[in-house]
Amino acid sequence: MDTIDRLTQLFQKFPGIGPRQAGRFVQYLLRSSPSLRRELAGAIRELGGSVKQCAECFRYFAGSGKACDICANPNRERTVLAVVASDADLAALEYSATYKGVYFVLGGTISLASEKMNGLRLKQLLDSLPNRIERGLSEVILAFPANPEGDATATRIREELVRGLPSDKQIKITALGRGLSTGSELEYADAETIAQALGNRR
Amino acid sequence: MDTIDRLTQLFQKFPGIGPRQAGRFVQYLLRSSPSLRRELAGAIRELGGSVKQCAECFRYFAGSGKACDICANPNRERTVLAVVASDADLAALEYSATYKGVYFVLGGTISLASEKMNGLRLKQLLDSLPNRIERGLSEVILAFPANPEGDATATRIREELVRGLPSDKQIKITALGRGLSTGSELEYADAETIAQALGNRR
Amino acid sequence: MDTIDRLTQLFQKFPGIGPRQAGRFVQYLLRSSPSLRRELAGAIRELGGSVKQCAECFRYFAGSGKACDICANPNRERTVLAVVASDADLAALEYSATYKGVYFVLGGTISLASEKMNGLRLKQLLDSLPNRIERGLSEVILAFPANPEGDATATRIREELVRGLPSDKQIKITALGRGLSTGSELEYADAETIAQALGNRR
Amino acid sequence: MDTIDRLTQLFQKFPGIGPRQAGRFVQYLLRSSPSLRRELAGAIRELGGSVKQCAECFRYFAGSGKACDICANPNRERTVLAVVASDADLAALEYSATYKGVYFVLGGTISLASEKMNGLRLKQLLDSLPNRIERGLSEVILAFPANPEGDATATRIREELVRGLPSDKQIKITALGRGLSTGSELEYADAETIAQALGNRR
Repeated sequence: MDTIDRLTQLFQKFPGIGPRQAGRFVQYLLRSSPSLRRELAGAIRELGGSVKQCAECFRYFAGSGKACDICANPNRERTVLAVVASDADLAALEYSATYKGVYFVLGGTISLASEKMNGLRLKQLLDSLPNRIERGLSEVILAFPANPEGDATATRIREELVRGLPSDKQIKITALGRGLSTGSELEYADAETIAQALGNRR
Repeated sequence: MDTIDRLTQLFQKFPGIGPRQAGRFVQYLLRSSPSLRRELAGAIRELGGSVKQCAECFRYFAGSGKACDICANPNRERTVLAVVASDADLAALEYSATYKGVYFVLGGTISLASEKMNGLRLKQLLDSLPNRIERGLSEVILAFPANPEGDATATRIREELVRGLPSDKQIKITALGRGLSTGSELEYADAETIAQALGNRR
Repeated sequence: MDTIDRLTQLFQKFPGIGPRQAGRFVQYLLRSSPSLRRELAGAIRELGGSVKQCAECFRYFAGSGKACDICANPNRERTVLAVVASDADLAALEYSATYKGVYFVLGGTISLASEKMNGLRLKQLLDSLPNRIERGLSEVILAFPANPEGDATATRIREELVRGLPSDKQIKITALGRGLSTGSELEYADAETIAQALGNRR
Repeated sequence: MDTIDRLTQLFQKFPGIGPRQAGRFVQYLLRSSPSLRRELAGAIRELGGSVKQCAECFRYFAGSGKACDICANPNRERTVLAVVASDADLAALEYSATYKGVYFVLGGTISLASEKMNGLRLKQLLDSLPNRIERGLSEVILAFPANPEGDATATRIREELVRGLPSDKQIKITALGRGLSTGSELEYADAETIAQALGNRR
């Protein structure tokens, strides 16, 4: 198999990429300058060397030190911790530029088929709490997607937190608000969203 | 022009219906029984005679009496009034089967171009309040779509209500909750929705 | 049940119309003029009286006489007969304004589940052929959709025609051309379409 | 800017890739094994060194020799030459697994704005014909997309071929078949496609 075919196959493993788009990626690289290809190859190779998981929030980052730039930032509030499923969800919250607290990346959501927590960093989350509480933690936000897997994960984490948290500490456990998302028409909203928009009126 | 062409043209005036779907409607009616066609024609003709606007909420209804079945229903709570833009939005709230209060149909939202309230039943809403307060009203829910027109309308109605409501009465003015709508992934949510989901966490 | 609900339910029976769009149709009619409603109701009622199936091609039409305006038109060529699944497919061929022959509406395609010809007017098609041949028929075009049902129907009709046609008459049996449809990129075309575009090159 | 951000920006330059999918690509690579990242980086770096344009068909390929694996394959038929706009269109034809001849990649289609052939390898195509005819060429297939640019290119190439080909040689010039593409309903097909499906019936 030649380089073009091999590269096409590698791009097909990328999330959401089929054989044709993989082929277009290769065509794009063929028409690109050698310096761009060198830069791309270099960056991919570097990922392994420079990128590591943050010792506090478990997201991937590149940099020196054990903690990522968010966890290492003294200006981020330690009073509130958002538990998210993935690095991508963390990025979405950062992108909204309203959250000033810190994060914990759980590593996924519960699979509804197995109801297992396999591979999720529940233990690491619980183990980190005493230290976090000492540093001022007063609220845990369960920031999971608004789907059955996200809901099941939130329910489970909430139970574990209630059981695991010291009873003499007042830690609030919250979840992201549900309701009409920006731009949505009432007329086309589903019944559950409307019910939640009514329940969460303010 | 024959009956088929004429009917096709009439169906093309229906909201969201193009020439091909209009043609399919006619084909459907051609294959239907004469009694179904008679029933449909009769119901359309009857709309004019039997349908009127409710004297209280201003939605269209068919029936005897001045008030629609919701406004006439003694089991609906008079303590809460949902102000909606249209009959369709009212129907969406009813469809969610969680709201037990009554409604007021404003007749539209503010046009952002003109910022005018033309054609909206603001005066009728304000005029109805003393009587509604007497009957126990304690909350007005501004149930508008989550778009700029809906937001502008809510802001305006809120101002008018604050100005128009007797200061010695405690009437709460609320709006539908904003946040993640059912089924939405954090990863794909827009920044404003995430900001509102964070702000409205509970 | 009142007129609005009854009409909403009737519109829900229309092809492709759900409860919400049915509700919007009713709202549209409520806002329409009484004269438009009268015209619509009248046209629907008239369908039964004025519309009949053409005795030759079996499509629905409104008019006097036994044959529709296409079959009754002496300028349409009798040498070529397009067999189509439905009135809608006939309309699509007419819309392209290139076909000058006459039609026969089969009334559907074979269901792949049952492989039955139930309800299809195969017998009527075969019975009409001697008379059509006498009037000059020399080609039958099987104008079915380019999907498995259409292909199965074409195969079956072709067999029946070969068996049913007098052997001393030269009747050509053709099918619509397959290949790239207007506007399609080679890059995104499926393999079967490309294979047919190659096979049908000219 | 760290490696993750730099790589995200590089992926955003890929055709059809926005910031979020670029981010997912990086996440995917972060979760991948070091060996996969090394293989990918290596393949990208190799593209420049190992890939060249085929001296016969002008497509990109990786390998030794001057001709690509198709042009070098003695089992491909030399009697038929498909002229295509791009490597991607060539790949689509190969993917359909029905074409056994050889190719020529023109390098694009005529821009309708300029009507110029700039950058297209027309001269190279014409220059290659005497040798191809000697080796048995009897048909040139103009395999362009079914859009105005493709049609204009086909018209122009056909003119040049007619002018450039020796008059004593019988070279057939064909184009891909037009008509219904696989899966298309007659009812929804555009008028031109139906006209071509009728014209190309067989």
